Amino acid sequence: MAQRKHRRTAFNPSRPAPENRGGGEAYWIYGWHAVNAALANRQRACLRLMAAAPERVEIPPWRADLAIDIAERAEIERHLPADAVHQGVALQVRPLRDVDLDDLFESAGTGPLLVLDQVTDPRNVGAILRSAAAFDAAAVVLARRHAPPESGAMAKAASGALDLVPLVRVANLARGLRDIAQAGYWCLGLDAGADATLAEALPAGRPAALVLGAEGEGLRRLTSEACDDLARLPIGARMPSLNVSAAATLALYIAHAAVTST
Amino acid sequence: MAQRKHRRTAFNPSRPAPENRGGGEAYWIYGWHAVNAALANRQRACLRLMAAAPERVEIPPWRADLAIDIAERAEIERHLPADAVHQGVALQVRPLRDVDLDDLFESAGTGPLLVLDQVTDPRNVGAILRSAAAFDAAAVVLARRHAPPESGAMAKAASGALDLVPLVRVANLARGLRDIAQAGYWCLGLDAGADATLAEALPAGRPAALVLGAEGEGLRRLTSEACDDLARLPIGARMPSLNVSAAATLALYIAHAAVTST
Repeated sequence: MAQRKHRRTAFNPSRPAPENRGGGEAYWIYGWHAVNAALANRQRACLRLMAAAPERVEIPPWRADLAIDIAERAEIERHLPADAVHQGVALQVRPLRDVDLDDLFESAGTGPLLVLDQVTDPRNVGAILRSAAAFDAAAVVLARRHAPPESGAMAKAASGALDLVPLVRVANLARGLRDIAQAGYWCLGLDAGADATLAEALPAGRPAALVLGAEGEGLRRLTSEACDDLARLPIGARMPSLNVSAAATLALYIAHAAVTST
Repeated sequence: MAQRKHRRTAFNPSRPAPENRGGGEAYWIYGWHAVNAALANRQRACLRLMAAAPERVEIPPWRADLAIDIAERAEIERHLPADAVHQGVALQVRPLRDVDLDDLFESAGTGPLLVLDQVTDPRNVGAILRSAAAFDAAAVVLARRHAPPESGAMAKAASGALDLVPLVRVANLARGLRDIAQAGYWCLGLDAGADATLAEALPAGRPAALVLGAEGEGLRRLTSEACDDLARLPIGARMPSLNVSAAATLALYIAHAAVTST
């Protein structure tokens, strides 16, 4: 939007977010992909936009009230963590409104769900959202108590996918899995000790919920018991498991390939 | 090794490493998988082992001179970065001896090579090593100037694979790729803009070198030109690319599946 007038406006933190947007404590998103995806998301309350070079910022017409605050990189960095790779752009936002499973079942297509058991690293959750977007997953589901809150690090790792793929937080993961099964998904727990590979265990003609455990620990017993079946990723004998975001990517790819090849 | 006698011995940093092991500045590896893999690697100089609970430490018989220093977690943490997930075990080691391409060509099997262009995050390199081990890759190759040094964070993300998969550092990546092609590998650059998918572009009957660019930036021109062909990962339209370690995992899986299905 090179024609856009760059105003320097006073920041007014008391300006209320529209009713349909999220509340919660404001935080900063940074990097082009993450910032432009947040700007494009109608559900996202955007408070303040700072850019060292505004050429790559894409402000949709309906965000006419949002000015670009042209700022030095050092000024931008004062709002960000020390190691943030911000590419000269940062956007202060509010977290998205909570999405619950019922909202999801109403709107979800036929893509798989990804259910994460105790994945707490925001960068892992972000990278998993990115892969979920790449393979048309319907949502990423996690337990509220163990889930990292939305953050700049998560949004950066998600590279825009935080504003594309719903992140659903449930009170109890085992109960959530039962609701997911009730809604028609086949719940497959990823477990290195399972007999069947994921490709063998995927159901024909119904969507799958792929359930992944935490790094190193795997699925907890209650989570595992709430699954319809267990399956393993087809990896070699030298390494017992993959990084959780690598495992999620591979599981989504295999599920996606199974759907598109039938 | 529950029967092992746990001695508290004075640490002697001047004890020379055997000739066939690496030199360089000592650093700490932590976490069970990473520590046990380092202990099991005959090429690894191990200087000092600290453990809060020694039951899960596996010291091979030929490391009879290495004692377990039983230590409180707080004592272990004094040697580690603040956020290190150490699981109560840490091992001071020296970096492995440099492996060059000629060493590799002598010993490599038929597994693919993974070539990384400007991947600088040690956790990404570690996660990629882990996936490389899972899919029997022959080695991970990077340019010396952009490659992160061995570190505890890399070893932790690799979950043991740093001591399983050779990490080859070359002076110049484009020249390295020509040497790799000369040795019989088909060099395939991963590029989101390529026409062919990776599965379509994989050569029959010869090993592949899979070349991945940095996060967001993709392959540099000189790297791209040194490849025999370009190919894309089969991802959807919503997301232009994956996290580099997710992309590496998927590329390795697809290459592995192509070999095992023929």
